[in-house]
Amino acid sequence: MINIGIDIFGGDNAPEEILKAVKIFLEKKKNIKLTLFGSEMIIKAALGEKANVEIVHTEKFLSMGEKDPVSYLRANPDCSMAMALKYASEKKVDGVVSAGPTQALIVGAHLIIKRLENMKRTALCPILPSEDGKGKLLLDVGANLELKKEHMLELANFATILSREVMGIPEPITGLLNIGTEAGKGREIDKETYALLEASETINFFGNVETKELFSSPCHIHLTDGYTGNMVLKTMEGVFGTTSKLMREEIKRTFMGKLGYFFMRKNLARFKKRLDPKEIGGAMLIGVKAPVIKAHGSSDAYAFYNAIQQAEKMIGNNVIEKVKKVLNAKEEE
Amino acid sequence: MINIGIDIFGGDNAPEEILKAVKIFLEKKKNIKLTLFGSEMIIKAALGEKANVEIVHTEKFLSMGEKDPVSYLRANPDCSMAMALKYASEKKVDGVVSAGPTQALIVGAHLIIKRLENMKRTALCPILPSEDGKGKLLLDVGANLELKKEHMLELANFATILSREVMGIPEPITGLLNIGTEAGKGREIDKETYALLEASETINFFGNVETKELFSSPCHIHLTDGYTGNMVLKTMEGVFGTTSKLMREEIKRTFMGKLGYFFMRKNLARFKKRLDPKEIGGAMLIGVKAPVIKAHGSSDAYAFYNAIQQAEKMIGNNVIEKVKKVLNAKEEE
Repeated sequence: MINIGIDIFGGDNAPEEILKAVKIFLEKKKNIKLTLFGSEMIIKAALGEKANVEIVHTEKFLSMGEKDPVSYLRANPDCSMAMALKYASEKKVDGVVSAGPTQALIVGAHLIIKRLENMKRTALCPILPSEDGKGKLLLDVGANLELKKEHMLELANFATILSREVMGIPEPITGLLNIGTEAGKGREIDKETYALLEASETINFFGNVETKELFSSPCHIHLTDGYTGNMVLKTMEGVFGTTSKLMREEIKRTFMGKLGYFFMRKNLARFKKRLDPKEIGGAMLIGVKAPVIKAHGSSDAYAFYNAIQQAEKMIGNNVIEKVKKVLNAKEEE
Repeated sequence: MINIGIDIFGGDNAPEEILKAVKIFLEKKKNIKLTLFGSEMIIKAALGEKANVEIVHTEKFLSMGEKDPVSYLRANPDCSMAMALKYASEKKVDGVVSAGPTQALIVGAHLIIKRLENMKRTALCPILPSEDGKGKLLLDVGANLELKKEHMLELANFATILSREVMGIPEPITGLLNIGTEAGKGREIDKETYALLEASETINFFGNVETKELFSSPCHIHLTDGYTGNMVLKTMEGVFGTTSKLMREEIKRTFMGKLGYFFMRKNLARFKKRLDPKEIGGAMLIGVKAPVIKAHGSSDAYAFYNAIQQAEKMIGNNVIEKVKKVLNAKEEE
């Protein structure tokens, strides 16, 4: 039976929303076990007695306000996030979902679960909304500041398998984010990576993609280094935030605006849903020996439920084993 | 009298919208001369006989569909863009405005007008919308792929003067775009640039700014390298494009949506106006010996009018002379 480790204390809305998600998940999926890391009392109060649940008790947790979450994690191996990762490294759970601080989860997974052999880098890979509603992978968004071309190829191979097994895309297409679409564009690293991806037999390479096509390009995977991916992801966040804020301000300004909103509210809700990352799930931390899902810090029960489901797909479809096969084949060439 | 060179043939809507903008400008500003580069016949047909206009006739122009605009510009010194730049280099005009292809304008300004002494790099610097409606400078967005810390400092000094003289900000604040706000964040170059900006006496340095704060940070200037700036700018463009498209789709989907739109349309128009880069003007190409304004390729008359006005401010407020003074003072230290 698939066994997923859940950090009950990670995220702005923990533990309430996390436990709500767990409850719904347990009701819907009878054949999956969840191992919950957190206070036994709080968990039992929220869930009562449930089948398919194991509780690993700890009162310690990494607060979202912690100034130096990475040091905290190193110093506190008995906090809920560290224990979940430890269980994954010992194969007592098949994967981990946490909405706790991103950098701590990345570093913790590195130190505790450890990198796959033949995988030189890890990456954080969110699923972003797309115009066709299917979502697209973007990586890396912050696990590495700089990447060499060989690392980019590794990540593209991993993402291709993820896209196939988690997103259900039969033949995933990969695009390289760049400042122009022509082959010779960009920095040295971009040109080198372009050549390597083009020569690869395991990647369906589309070519360069400009960031104005992030939602509309034919690619299922957009590849870039962690510095650039982080800048791009947060720009999206900033634009969404500001457009929502200014639109609300302008609508509220007049009676006609409020009246219009009354008629149009369902349309605007549908519009928002199409661009809402919550609909899709968390970011996958790839390159370590077990699936780790980083749910958004502000996850509500619905978002966290989707993140657990994503872990289930990564585990159920043997993503890690399939990646190992591709990496080992490369090594033997 | 200020004399601004205008490339009549640059941009998707040239020459019609460019000439409309010129006409309005000439009517409003009686004490400024415009030198127009393009077909005498077309210009005269659109404007009639006007005071304060000089026509430099050429039929040749750089098409927006040109595959290799930079080579075209090198090979055709008698096209409208190249001639406008030539006139600026010979001080026959005080500055140039063009909506033609960006890379050609950047390279052309380099080759023909030439870099300022003591200025090692140029940069493309658009004015982006901000939540407070005043606009913010972002640079570089594509003149240089990579920049050293000394170049970043040069650009910050230039932008500080631009912000003061063109945007009317008495004490402009500069932020360094980065993946986190703490001082030690980012790549080596980011840490080095941080230290240099912090030590500078001519810059009001705010510290690091994440791109999710692009519209809302207290900074008037956001500094980054040309590769990153280009990725960020085009991400903004992509998000704006997709949100507008999906919102239109959802509103049109039902009768209630259309009805709501009828009541709310003025509110939505005001909302759009607050985020419209057209309200503010073009991108300034800085670091060469004369002001060069790159109006957006899709400029209509209103946008192009604003771009001409920006050139007027750069020239009228002696931006180039003020920058020279700061750069020379640095050199003598």
